[in-house]
Amino acid sequence: MTQADSKWMMLALEIAERGAGYVSPNPMVGCVIVSAEGEKIGQGYHERYGQAHAEQNAVDSVVAPDLLEGATVYVTLEPCAHHGKTPPCCEMLAELPIRRVVVAMEDPTPQVAGKGIAYLRERGINVEVGLLEDKAKRLNEFFLHYHTFNRPFVTLKMAQTLDGYIAAPDGNSEWISGVEARTMVHHWRSRYDAVMIGRNTALLDNPRLTVRHVEGRQPRRIVIDGPLDLPEELNLFTDQYEEKTIRLTHNKEKYRNEADPMLSMLQSDYFRGKTLLIDEKEGHTDLGKALDELGGLSITSILVEAGQNLASALLRERLVDKVECFIAPKILGGGTRSVMGVGINHMDEVLDFRDVEWQQVGKDLLFSGYF
Amino acid sequence: MTQADSKWMMLALEIAERGAGYVSPNPMVGCVIVSAEGEKIGQGYHERYGQAHAEQNAVDSVVAPDLLEGATVYVTLEPCAHHGKTPPCCEMLAELPIRRVVVAMEDPTPQVAGKGIAYLRERGINVEVGLLEDKAKRLNEFFLHYHTFNRPFVTLKMAQTLDGYIAAPDGNSEWISGVEARTMVHHWRSRYDAVMIGRNTALLDNPRLTVRHVEGRQPRRIVIDGPLDLPEELNLFTDQYEEKTIRLTHNKEKYRNEADPMLSMLQSDYFRGKTLLIDEKEGHTDLGKALDELGGLSITSILVEAGQNLASALLRERLVDKVECFIAPKILGGGTRSVMGVGINHMDEVLDFRDVEWQQVGKDLLFSGYF
Repeated sequence: MTQADSKWMMLALEIAERGAGYVSPNPMVGCVIVSAEGEKIGQGYHERYGQAHAEQNAVDSVVAPDLLEGATVYVTLEPCAHHGKTPPCCEMLAELPIRRVVVAMEDPTPQVAGKGIAYLRERGINVEVGLLEDKAKRLNEFFLHYHTFNRPFVTLKMAQTLDGYIAAPDGNSEWISGVEARTMVHHWRSRYDAVMIGRNTALLDNPRLTVRHVEGRQPRRIVIDGPLDLPEELNLFTDQYEEKTIRLTHNKEKYRNEADPMLSMLQSDYFRGKTLLIDEKEGHTDLGKALDELGGLSITSILVEAGQNLASALLRERLVDKVECFIAPKILGGGTRSVMGVGINHMDEVLDFRDVEWQQVGKDLLFSGYF
Repeated sequence: MTQADSKWMMLALEIAERGAGYVSPNPMVGCVIVSAEGEKIGQGYHERYGQAHAEQNAVDSVVAPDLLEGATVYVTLEPCAHHGKTPPCCEMLAELPIRRVVVAMEDPTPQVAGKGIAYLRERGINVEVGLLEDKAKRLNEFFLHYHTFNRPFVTLKMAQTLDGYIAAPDGNSEWISGVEARTMVHHWRSRYDAVMIGRNTALLDNPRLTVRHVEGRQPRRIVIDGPLDLPEELNLFTDQYEEKTIRLTHNKEKYRNEADPMLSMLQSDYFRGKTLLIDEKEGHTDLGKALDELGGLSITSILVEAGQNLASALLRERLVDKVECFIAPKILGGGTRSVMGVGINHMDEVLDFRDVEWQQVGKDLLFSGYF
């Protein structure tokens, strides 16, 4: 494959990302069509869940059908081969006079899994697979994780001082990180299916967990409320997005008495504000089971904006897939630590990250790493 | 001043740095001489304390005196005006047929303080001051601090996990940071006048604090031993550099009975291993007084490789000038914290850094910041 191929696929990946937050539980997909003469003649992406696929949007954008004669289609994910909410893209593409399809990665879901590529090849179209595959996988890391484990991809977000404190001794945490970091978190909220917090954070900060500093889709909001006794006046239960709030409890008695037992999720495009009963584990809500339940509700990704308790519990149970940690150039020397108690006693057991990246965000540093 | 001027001054700064660790308590100085035709004809730096100054070395490196006709001398610090261990450089330069001297910064010490520049100007030499002044000040930050406050410049070095732990719950800390970070610390040791640790670190780790992974000058070693009861078998008191060890105590009784009261420092190029009696403050060795004493011994810079207690005490007393903190991409979730107890209760009191830099060192991140 040529440098031009890489350029067009990179563009397709960039376009794909515009669907972030809007296409879940589908993957983000981008498509670019280039004429036999090497000119871009069309592009499109999967814009909203349930709407047209990237390939269809790209083809629709081509101004004259004869331009497609001998063209190359660049697509970030294998064209689908199944009749879902739209007809299979591989059939649609095979009917065009195109010469070549370049695919960044195979679609690993069982309904596709190479069938789309095989279909195109059988119809005489030259298909090349694997260009910028790493980037394509990173783009759809939520989707891929979800379809492998049937559980949401969990990112733990932290914001701490250099010495690892998330709040001063008097409990105040405004503000550890700068406005650039906080704005970035709002951007993330718009891309994750849900934002999750623990009971203490709900009580102490009464957060809204909405997207405010940037444009974007409002996420679902998950609060772990084991005893099921958080005040009903909290923003999460009373603001205009109340139906996006999911409360998790392990209090069977109280749940049977008070919570709505009709868990008719996915009735509409939005969840109604709901309470889920989760098994108990050592006196707390079983977080692994909670992720299973949330996966069952098509939640493919969760941004955990946790305090010390929830962060430590998720790390202790090895339920975190990625950590995004802002480090502010400040020292508090006391207060609430970002992480305490993950069950490690010796250096051999240390939690090591892979694919680590460091980047400066305003005056703060952002650490990103995967487990 | 021209781009060529900047290029030559940058070279002079680079050359100056070769004296790091060897010229203290003098400043590092570099000098480049450029002919009237714009060719470099000489260069030199202050190589060792007590030996020739940069300007003399640069002039000595010029192969033929007539090359100096109309030449420009670039020097990173104002040429000295006083008779010290060598004759004044301003007199030496004024006798040459040079046309121009470019100086990065004035020498703030009272013996010079503009006199060198004035002397040259009076003799008809064109002197320009301030080129790359910020870099020149950074180069000699130890020297400048020492001459302003009569105390050593104190850098606190830490090596912690992402979540701010410097040892696992079982006490082990090998290794939080990677070999690249540890090598960098050895390089630093060769550039600071002294390395300092507290009592707990001496007891737990029995460190040598020597320069091993790189070439370089061995530093003096300072250990705070308030009760004066550290075991005499420690490496600091028994290895081949024992005479470079300075022990600080506030135990008057024991000091009078056991320690050598004859503090005949600076008898030779090296200190003999010594014990200093320092005032007590709230049951501990008074760290501010300790720095005053060490300053009196011509120690201009200290690299503190502290554990939690000494790091926190120095921060609490606001005695730290710079922090170098390695952050390893790891989570321990428990153990010894890097900093605990600096007297802060509210976010308003947070210790903020200025001139912050982040750089990757191996797999670790290095934070550098000034107070």
